[in-house]
Formats: sequence, C-alpha cells, structure tokens
Amino acid sequence: MKKFGFIIVLLVVSSGLLYAQSRRIINIPNISGYQTLKCDLHMHTVFSDGTVWPTVRIEEAWNEGLDAISITDHIEYRPHSIDVVADHNRSYDLAKPLADQSDILLIKGAEITRSMPPGHFNALFITNANLLELDDVQDAVKEARDQGAFLMWNHPCWDAQQPDSVLWWDEHSYFFENDMLHGIEVYNWEFCPEALDWANEKMLTMLGNSDVHGPMDVNDGHRPLTLVFAKSRTIGGIKEALFDGRTAVYFDNTIVGRSEFLEPLFFQSLEFKKTPLKLKNKESKVVKITNNSDVDYELELVQPGVGFDAPETITLKAHHVSALSLSGNSDEVANSGSLDVYYRVNNLLTGVDDPLVVTFTFRNN
Amino acid sequence: MKKFGFIIVLLVVSSGLLYAQSRRIINIPNISGYQTLKCDLHMHTVFSDGTVWPTVRIEEAWNEGLDAISITDHIEYRPHSIDVVADHNRSYDLAKPLADQSDILLIKGAEITRSMPPGHFNALFITNANLLELDDVQDAVKEARDQGAFLMWNHPCWDAQQPDSVLWWDEHSYFFENDMLHGIEVYNWEFCPEALDWANEKMLTMLGNSDVHGPMDVNDGHRPLTLVFAKSRTIGGIKEALFDGRTAVYFDNTIVGRSEFLEPLFFQSLEFKKTPLKLKNKESKVVKITNNSDVDYELELVQPGVGFDAPETITLKAHHVSALSLSGNSDEVANSGSLDVYYRVNNLLTGVDDPLVVTFTFRNN
Amino acid sequence: MKKFGFIIVLLVVSSGLLYAQSRRIINIPNISGYQTLKCDLHMHTVFSDGTVWPTVRIEEAWNEGLDAISITDHIEYRPHSIDVVADHNRSYDLAKPLADQSDILLIKGAEITRSMPPGHFNALFITNANLLELDDVQDAVKEARDQGAFLMWNHPCWDAQQPDSVLWWDEHSYFFENDMLHGIEVYNWEFCPEALDWANEKMLTMLGNSDVHGPMDVNDGHRPLTLVFAKSRTIGGIKEALFDGRTAVYFDNTIVGRSEFLEPLFFQSLEFKKTPLKLKNKESKVVKITNNSDVDYELELVQPGVGFDAPETITLKAHHVSALSLSGNSDEVANSGSLDVYYRVNNLLTGVDDPLVVTFTFRNN
Amino acid sequence: MKKFGFIIVLLVVSSGLLYAQSRRIINIPNISGYQTLKCDLHMHTVFSDGTVWPTVRIEEAWNEGLDAISITDHIEYRPHSIDVVADHNRSYDLAKPLADQSDILLIKGAEITRSMPPGHFNALFITNANLLELDDVQDAVKEARDQGAFLMWNHPCWDAQQPDSVLWWDEHSYFFENDMLHGIEVYNWEFCPEALDWANEKMLTMLGNSDVHGPMDVNDGHRPLTLVFAKSRTIGGIKEALFDGRTAVYFDNTIVGRSEFLEPLFFQSLEFKKTPLKLKNKESKVVKITNNSDVDYELELVQPGVGFDAPETITLKAHHVSALSLSGNSDEVANSGSLDVYYRVNNLLTGVDDPLVVTFTFRNN
Repeated sequence: MKKFGFIIVLLVVSSGLLYAQSRRIINIPNISGYQTLKCDLHMHTVFSDGTVWPTVRIEEAWNEGLDAISITDHIEYRPHSIDVVADHNRSYDLAKPLADQSDILLIKGAEITRSMPPGHFNALFITNANLLELDDVQDAVKEARDQGAFLMWNHPCWDAQQPDSVLWWDEHSYFFENDMLHGIEVYNWEFCPEALDWANEKMLTMLGNSDVHGPMDVNDGHRPLTLVFAKSRTIGGIKEALFDGRTAVYFDNTIVGRSEFLEPLFFQSLEFKKTPLKLKNKESKVVKITNNSDVDYELELVQPGVGFDAPETITLKAHHVSALSLSGNSDEVANSGSLDVYYRVNNLLTGVDDPLVVTFTFRNN
Repeated sequence: MKKFGFIIVLLVVSSGLLYAQSRRIINIPNISGYQTLKCDLHMHTVFSDGTVWPTVRIEEAWNEGLDAISITDHIEYRPHSIDVVADHNRSYDLAKPLADQSDILLIKGAEITRSMPPGHFNALFITNANLLELDDVQDAVKEARDQGAFLMWNHPCWDAQQPDSVLWWDEHSYFFENDMLHGIEVYNWEFCPEALDWANEKMLTMLGNSDVHGPMDVNDGHRPLTLVFAKSRTIGGIKEALFDGRTAVYFDNTIVGRSEFLEPLFFQSLEFKKTPLKLKNKESKVVKITNNSDVDYELELVQPGVGFDAPETITLKAHHVSALSLSGNSDEVANSGSLDVYYRVNNLLTGVDDPLVVTFTFRNN
Repeated sequence: MKKFGFIIVLLVVSSGLLYAQSRRIINIPNISGYQTLKCDLHMHTVFSDGTVWPTVRIEEAWNEGLDAISITDHIEYRPHSIDVVADHNRSYDLAKPLADQSDILLIKGAEITRSMPPGHFNALFITNANLLELDDVQDAVKEARDQGAFLMWNHPCWDAQQPDSVLWWDEHSYFFENDMLHGIEVYNWEFCPEALDWANEKMLTMLGNSDVHGPMDVNDGHRPLTLVFAKSRTIGGIKEALFDGRTAVYFDNTIVGRSEFLEPLFFQSLEFKKTPLKLKNKESKVVKITNNSDVDYELELVQPGVGFDAPETITLKAHHVSALSLSGNSDEVANSGSLDVYYRVNNLLTGVDDPLVVTFTFRNN
Repeated sequence: MKKFGFIIVLLVVSSGLLYAQSRRIINIPNISGYQTLKCDLHMHTVFSDGTVWPTVRIEEAWNEGLDAISITDHIEYRPHSIDVVADHNRSYDLAKPLADQSDILLIKGAEITRSMPPGHFNALFITNANLLELDDVQDAVKEARDQGAFLMWNHPCWDAQQPDSVLWWDEHSYFFENDMLHGIEVYNWEFCPEALDWANEKMLTMLGNSDVHGPMDVNDGHRPLTLVFAKSRTIGGIKEALFDGRTAVYFDNTIVGRSEFLEPLFFQSLEFKKTPLKLKNKESKVVKITNNSDVDYELELVQPGVGFDAPETITLKAHHVSALSLSGNSDEVANSGSLDVYYRVNNLLTGVDDPLVVTFTFRNN
C-alpha cells in the first residue's frame, strides 16, 4: 500500500465567518446635527488578561450592531505572557484588518493599570502603546496625552480598589488640572453614582463600557455602551465628540447623560400625529405614541394638565404603540389651543436623582 | 350592630383596559401608491361557536397591531343559543364602540355555513346579517351580494368537508359566474395549494385568515393575515382593494401573492447604499443590506453574476443587517457599470412552486 | 341547474381541542405529608363581567398546569345580562364536563359583590349559587356558610374600594367572629401587605388568585396561584386544607406563607451531595446545589460561618445548578464535624418584612 | 506633590468567575445500567486555529451542563504561532486545573490534520500530544494508538475536503483494519448520512461534536453532543464506553443511535399511570404522558390498534404533559387485557431512513 497523507494547507475560514451571522440593529435615534454612534471603549483580549483573540472583539461588535470599539489591554498586567509573546500594539494590529473589512471603527487604546490612587486609566486614540510602559504613572499618562490621547478614569466604584468608600483623590485633581483626565466611567459592570456626580460637577465626559474579558454574552439585551453624538461616523468624529463631552451612557433599560442630549433622544424615538385633539370637558381623547427605539420609556406624571387628566404613569414600550388617554375635566379645556403634559422619564437620568422631565405639547384646536 | 352592605355600582373597567397594553407593530412595508393594511377577515365569538365576547376581538386586534378585522359568526350554527340570545347583528354591534375608540376598522360580516358543496362562505361588508338566514344557500349568497358583499370561499382544504380530495364544484362555478364568489382562503389553519392555483387561474382575491374561535394566542409570532394594498386606511379602501384583487397572504414566515405586489414589498423592506462598488477581479466587496421588515427573506442564487461570484444562499434576517459578499472572478468585472444578481426568494410565493425571482442591481462604476 | 346547499350538522370540535395543546408543568415540590396543588380560586366568565366562555377557564387551567380552579362569577353584577340569560349556577354547569374530562378540579363558587364595607367575598364549595342572591349581605354570606362555604375577603387593597387607606372594618370582625370569614387575598393583581399582616395576626388562610376577566395571558410566566398543601388531590382535600390554613401564595418569583410550609418547600426544591466537604483553612470547597423548582431563590447571608466564609449573596437559579463556594478562614474549621450557613431567602416571605431564614448544614468530616 | 502610582498586583478574578453563572441541566435520562454523559469531543483554542483561551472551554462546558470535553487542537495547523508559543500539550495543561475545580472531565486529545485521504482524525485519551507531530500520517495515528487512543474520523461530509462526493477510501480501510479507527462523526456542523451508514455497517462508534473554534453560542438550545452511556462518570468510564460503541448523537431536536440505546432513552423520558384504562366501544380514554426530557418527541402512528383508534400524529413536548386519546371502535376492545399502540418516533433515528419504532402497552383491564 502506498504512503498517503500530506500535511495540508487548510482553508482559512475565519475571515469569511463574519458574514455567516446577521448584524443586529441597536435602535437609538440620531439627534439634530449628530449621529448617535454605539461605542464600547474598554475591553480585553488574550494579549492582557482577557480570554479571546482580538478578532473576536470585531466579530462581536459586528454581530451586536456597534459602530466603534477600543481594545484596551493592560500595559502592566499580562498573565498569559508565558504563552503569548508580543508587544502592546499587537492586539490592535491583529484586529484592524477585520475591523476595516466589516466597517467597525477600531480606536487604538490601552489601559494604564495602577493601584488606587489613581486606579486604572484608559488612553484612547494613542499611536504607540509600547511607549506607555513606564514605571511612573504620571509619566505614562503624560506620554499618552502627548500622543493626543483622550484619558478616562475607569470604574471608580470598583470595590476591589475602593472597598469602603468611593473617593476622588488628589491624584485625580492633578490629572484633571493638567489635561490628563477627560472622562470617567459612569457604568462598568454597575452604575457608579459618584462618577455621575463628578462628571456633572467637573464636566467630565461620561462613559459606559463593558470591560469584557471573556466572550461577550448579551442574550437578548445589549452590552453597556457609550453613546457618542458625533458629526461623522469616523474615528476623528468620535475623538472630537469625546473631547467635547457629547456622550451618554446606555445600560440595561437606562440612559444617563446631559439633558441637552437626552431630551432630543427621547423625542426622536417617538412618533405621534399632530392633528388637533379637540378635547372637551367630560370627553376622552387618545394619542397613539409609537416608540421606535429599543428603550421602554417609563413615564410618571409631574403635574396635572390644565383642564384635563392624564395617566399617572405610562410605559412607552419599545417598538410598540402606546395609547395616552387624556380626559377633559373642565369646560375651559375646549378653548385651549394646546395641551401641555409634564412627565418625568424615570429611566433617563441627568443626575443621580434627576430623571429627565419632558413636556408633551399636543395641539387641541 | 347596624346593617351594612348595599349592592353597589361597580366601576366598569373594560373600556379602559384596552390601553393597559401596548400595541405591537407589524413591520410589512407599504408599496407604491398603497398602504399595506394588516387584516383578519374571519373569526368567531360566543354569538356563534366561538368562546370569547366580541370586544375581545378588538382588544386582540389592537394588541397585535392589526388594522382591520371582520367578525364572521355563523348564521346557521349557534351552539350557545340556549344561553346567548341575540340576533345576527349583535356581535358587530357590541364590538363597534371599542373598535371606533381604538381605531380598528371593523367590517360587518357573517359566515354562510353549509356542507360541501359549496361549503362555507364569508360575506363581508354586509348591512344586515339577519337577512342572510335563508334555507336555500343560493338565496343567502344572493342576499349578501345584493347588500354589496364581497364573497369568499372559506378553507377549501378543510378535510372535515373534503376528506379525500380538494375539488372545485359546479356550485362554485355557478357562484363565480354570477358575481357571488370574489375571493378564496389560501390560508386557514394550513396553506391550501389548490386555492392558490384557483386564485391564480380565475383571478380570485387571495385571503389568509385566522378563523379563530377561542382566545387568540400568537406568542412571539403573528396570526395569519390578509395583507390588503389599499388606497386609504378606511373600510371603503379595503372593500375597493378586495374587489380589485390587491391582497397577499402572510402566514408564519411566508407571503403568498402576485409578483406585482410581492416584488415591491420585498424591495421596500430593504435598505442598502447605492455608492459604486468598484469590484475588481480577485477582490471582494461587501454590500450591507438592512431588512426592516418582520420577514426573514430566504434567498437562493438563480444564476451566477457575469464576472463575479455571489453566495449560493443567504438569509436576510428580519431587523438585521446582512452582508452580501461579491467576489470578482474575471478581469471584465472591473469594467461593468452595474452588477446584476438574480435570487429566488423561497418564502415569497407567487404560485405553489413559484417563488418570486428578484434582481439586485448594484452600481459598480 | 339543481338546487344545492343544505344546512349542515357541523362537527363539534371544541371538546377535542383541549388535547391539541400540551400542558405545562409547574415545578413547585410537594412537602412532607402533603401534595402541593396549584389553584386559582377567583375568576370570571361572560356569565358575570368576564369576556370568555366557561370552558375557556378549563382549557387555560389545563394548558398552564393547574390542579384546581373556581369560577366565581359575581352574583350582583352581570353587565352582559341582556344577551346572556342564565342562572348563577350556569357557568359551573357549562365548565364541569370539560373539567372532568381533563382532570381539573372545579370548585363551585361565586363572588358576593358589595361596596366597602365589607367589599367582595368569594364563597367556595357552595351547592347552589342562586340562593346567594339576597339583598342583605349578611344574609347572603350566612347562606353561603350554611352551604358549607369557605369564605374569603377579596382584594382588600383594591383602590377602587379603599382609595386612601386599607382598613379592617367592624363588618369584617363581625364575619370573622361568626365563622363567615376564613381567608383573605394576599395577592390579587398586586401584593397586599395589610392582608398578609391580618392573615398572620388572625390566622386567616392566605390566598393569591388571578381574578382574571378576559383571556388569561401568562406569556412565559405563571398566573398568581394559591398553593394548597392537601392530603389528597380532590375537592375535599382542598376544602380541608383551606379550612386548616395550609396554603401559600405564589406570584411572580415570590412565595408568601408560613415558615412551616416555606421551609420544606425550599429544601424539597434542592438537591446536593451529602458527602463530607473536608474543608480546611485557606482552602475552598464548592457545593453544587441543583434547584429543581421554577423559583429563582435569592439568598443573602445572615451571619458568617464559624471558621469559613460563604458568599454574601447567591441566586439559586431555577432548573440550574449553582456553586456555593466555602473558604476556610481559621484552623479550627478542619475539625468541625459540620458547617452551618444561615441565609435569608429574600423572595420567600413569612411576613411583610420577614423573609424566611434557612440553615444549610453541610457535613465536613 | 509627592509621586504616586505603583504598579500593582491585581486580583486575579478569573478562577472565581466560573461560579458567577449558573449551570444549565441537560435533561436526557440515564438508561438501565448506564449514566448518560453529555460530551463534546472536538474543539479548538488559540493554541491551534481557535480564538479562545483553553479555560473558556471549561467555563462553557460548566455553563451548558456538559460532563466531559476534549480540546483537540490541530497538531499541524497553528496559524497563531507567531504570537502563541507553546507545545501541543499546553492547551490541556492550562484547562486542567479549572476542569478539576468544576468537575468537568477533561480528556486529553489532539487532531491529526491531513488532506483527504484520510482527512482529519481526533485522537482521544492520549498521553503526550507532542509525539504525534510526525510527517507520515500513518506514523502519527500509530503513535496515538500506541498511547491507547480512541481514534475517530472527523466530519467525513465536510465539502472542503470532499466537495462532490462522500467516499470511504482505502486509507480508512487500512486504519479500520489495523485498530486505528474506532469512531466517526455522524454530526459536525451538519448531519452526515454516509457516516451513519458506515457506523452501522462497520459498528463504528457514533460521535456528534461541535468542532467549535470561536466562543460557543448556544442561545436557548444546546450544542451538538455525543451522549456516552458510561458505567461511571469518569474518564475511564467514557473510554470504555467509546471503545464499546455505547453512544448516541444529539443535535437540534434529534437523537441518532442504535435502538438498544434509543428505546430505553425514550421510555425513561416518559411517565404515565399504569392503572387500567377500561376502554369500551364508542368511548374515549385519555392517557396523560409526561415528558421529562428536553426533546420534543414527534410520533407518527405505524398501525392502528386492535379495536380502538389512536391519533395519527402526536408530539410529546419537552417538559409538558401530553394527552393521548384512545377511542374504542369495536366491542372486543372491552375484553382486551392490554392495548398496544405502535408509533414511529421521527426524530429518533437508528439509520438514515429508519426512525425508531416504539410500542406503548397500556393495561386495559
């Protein structure tokens, strides 16, 4: 019997696999002048303490409908380094071709990883991660800044670093005052109320990221996201928006951000007819409101309308039509040109205890 | 101790309950010149052999996102008549106020119910159901026609009436030739291929209905529907469209209808960029196709492109973005102004074995 | 052409339809000496202000895996009486044959319906509902008691009857002291804390029911249920258990009841190995706990173990295996014969602010 | 300002993360004398052409409820070798501690990877993967055999290796006849009918595996599995069962295997009462059958009962109770001591066109 069995050249299937799966759509609307980009700016691979290859991060981003990600492997913590031998730019370089092919914006990043203070900082839009490997954290952060980086304080609420309290240290003031701290994670595994307070006080850019280490598992939901309100769907567009503070943080069924972004986001999610209601005393009229977004908006009445009643609470369910029923309770209502209803949106937060308040104005006559 | 306990006037909660639930949206697009109305034109209540009150049919229609329904209680079969005492117009009259309040179009109908031939006929757009209670089925159908009714043959494939074969009887020819048979159920509990053949041969209007008797249970799906391509969202608009044959039948993940409706329905479901691909030999380009409809379109390549390869099969998943990858396989492709790809859409049927064939034309240069 | 079209005798399909659907299984274990029967003892049909035919209630009970129901149509409130003409026993009589065929225990009941006080009372196990139609509520309740009825106060928290407060009136004391009030609804549309307090103070039987009027919609969940710990799966067994107070109330992911029932229910839900752990200082051992019930048990540590640490919180997810990790923190642990861990089960409530506390005892040596 | 920011020792969280998630239960029953172990014996990591770290394979196995896995990285194909530098035993060594901690049986394996013939072979239960790196495939397979390996032919239907036909080559006969081919993948990404035929003809052990390269994504389902009927839940128990051919292949809602295993698997999944039915002519009796397994069994009547009718088709839905209705159609039925009903189970396959036929025997008197 003749010999057989040559060692073969296999088909490399990975580059085509991306297109075996369909890409979800995250339905969060654009707002006037800006595209709303869905970004996750904190994650790891086997090149630090993660457990997936960099290309997996692109495949996940494609599948889940993201616009942009940053792989932010730790500079100082690489537990797989016995087996995985490469410099700090390698995870970016390995992911970039698939990112380009699938139109995912890949932002070059790294995580500067220290004990508290100052804790962990992500440096985004860097040009060379290897130069960040410096003993002194100030030197490392300064190097990142000199590369043009956007710098953010990661997970200030992480109890492994601050078990008993969540403090802003002198070190953070130092970085903040020297243009080396531009943003803060308001969400990373959990919501961090202190971070939201500081973001509002100091006008830090708000971020919400997954910090995923293993394979991403989103089931029917979505990972935590930084919504970036960008002038263009480009890396430059994201950078400009981050430095300008134009973000919101989307986790579970909640969005946190400044009212100037949340209010248009809310109304751009909705459709309802503008025809006059012609509401009269002792009559009811129904406004059908279509919510085209993925968010179930949870509304609570702030103050009764003038001359009419509106429901105390109503949920505008995602991708459904809700019926808002208004009932006239005085004769004057028939003469009102328009009807104003004020609702608190309990899952749109501008501050820790500050849900967004919105005004619906319906034409009446 | 004083006496207590007066018999009370209860709050009537039913009229408000409608608005406790959100209304789904059925995402099937409009086509040029027509609104695509989602209609179920065959169902029952306790006023014949159903087990729900007529208002339940309106609540279900609201919840599921329907535009129009017809309650078609049997004239001749009323097994609850010992307890439920009313004339044949009663189920319509009881449902109408809630229909109006919730903007569901309620078409007055009834089911003329006989053994085969001719089986069961729905009469839609009638004015007085009581007048259809006549011994002779010809007289009953004639009365319906004289009221202006659209008349349809229900579930020709129902094995309780035709156990061994599905036949078109002389009786059906008689009705058809005398303007007393305008449509046929292509779907009722199951797809009826013979009905589709007859609809195509005789230009009968195609219908697909639930014929629901108990509470509707749609889980995460949708009930079988008649899609009506109407000039306006009115009862008159539906009537005009039905008599003109402008319908399609939507069940499970399949739509059956004439190609003049299915083709625009398909392309109106999709979005993709029109920028030139600039495909060259030995290169690949990806067209990202967004499917905004609820239907997963299942495509199978009919014939290879000229100068390029396209996938043999691809599913355009509902509410997802799919990536169609084209690969140049000859030098001429670089000179083509546009690239044509021909796909069979296996779940859009124009005939029993006739899936719709569609042509994608992508600009290349 | 010859005449055709006889009025036909249709197949009556309803009696067979029951078996077209599979029956779910509600996984709540039996406890020592008792079967845990899943019961809903409050619901309506078209024979009062409901919107479904009585047989629908049996079909729903079959599909959802219930053991017993009671149809409790209002004696005093029958808004459909223009069309639906029957006496108060009729809904029971119509449902009974299908109940027998499908082995659902159907308890004859009615709702005595008055303004507050005393509000609405369900009378269960009655023999003739017509005799309850009496002007004076005392007479009506007395008649029920004389028929051997178990009497319960329905939805004491219903804000249509008690908008600003939830009170126990003299009338309730009167009924309670005269053997005419045996149970109270702790859950009906919502949890009623006052009812739970009264049930505990006065040893009233706790009930949780759906009070469903329209078609039941349980999606992937379950309706609110009264769990009855009965000596036999019979109507007599349920009656004996109700009068003896052997019930718990199961809604959403919560069970409310006395600890004598909740504790065995909890431990009967679980399986884990009894082999010695041999835990030593600075080592960890994992106990794998299988939860065979439908309830996700949410545990919170009450007090640390002696010589070892256990997780602060752990969820024992329904139909999953959870890993409880114990870590030795002193040398003595190696000598312990058994390890006790105390957890609060936050969704098993014995009182309004009293979650059940359970002790896990693991053999160590 | 003083300097700050030491490089820190991070908490290593990965070893504890396993227990953050609950473990599913795969409900496929044991059969007499054997435990039914759920095994996936073919998968990859970054140490060949996979994209996850070896520990991920253990976490996935824990989460999904598997008993045993084998990581079978390619010997000859390691596209990440520029970055990932290690020998062929490394993926096993990295996964083993977590496997032990979580009680997942980890079988040492490797994939010998050649063009067709003979294609790809998995060697399971090897002792040193490095010794398999040999130019001649016969030498490599022989080395594996000498290490005591169970050897299987992987994915014979893979069209990248056999695009136009699925052939058994002389090389396979050579290996088969020389104790170097013991099993064959009947399922790998797709069902391979030829493999099932060969398994039956030659008594090869049937296997069904995931061959997963990226993160496992099972949604609500399960990955393809080899069901191993083992005398003990040990690696030795699995090895003995594999060499003895005691397996079945479980994919989607289908199980493929020999009838001696499928029949007891089917009946061990079911519960029904043994009390006599006492069926008489013109009466119906219902047998309630509880299916405790995860498989929806799809039954089709093979031949009518003697003296009674049974449903033509019935689905015994997973974790539900189904009602099998028997109707007497002759007077003799009342005298039958027992009633036999023969069903084909369309999703239990003993051969390509050979569904398992089962006999239900119900006591009648």
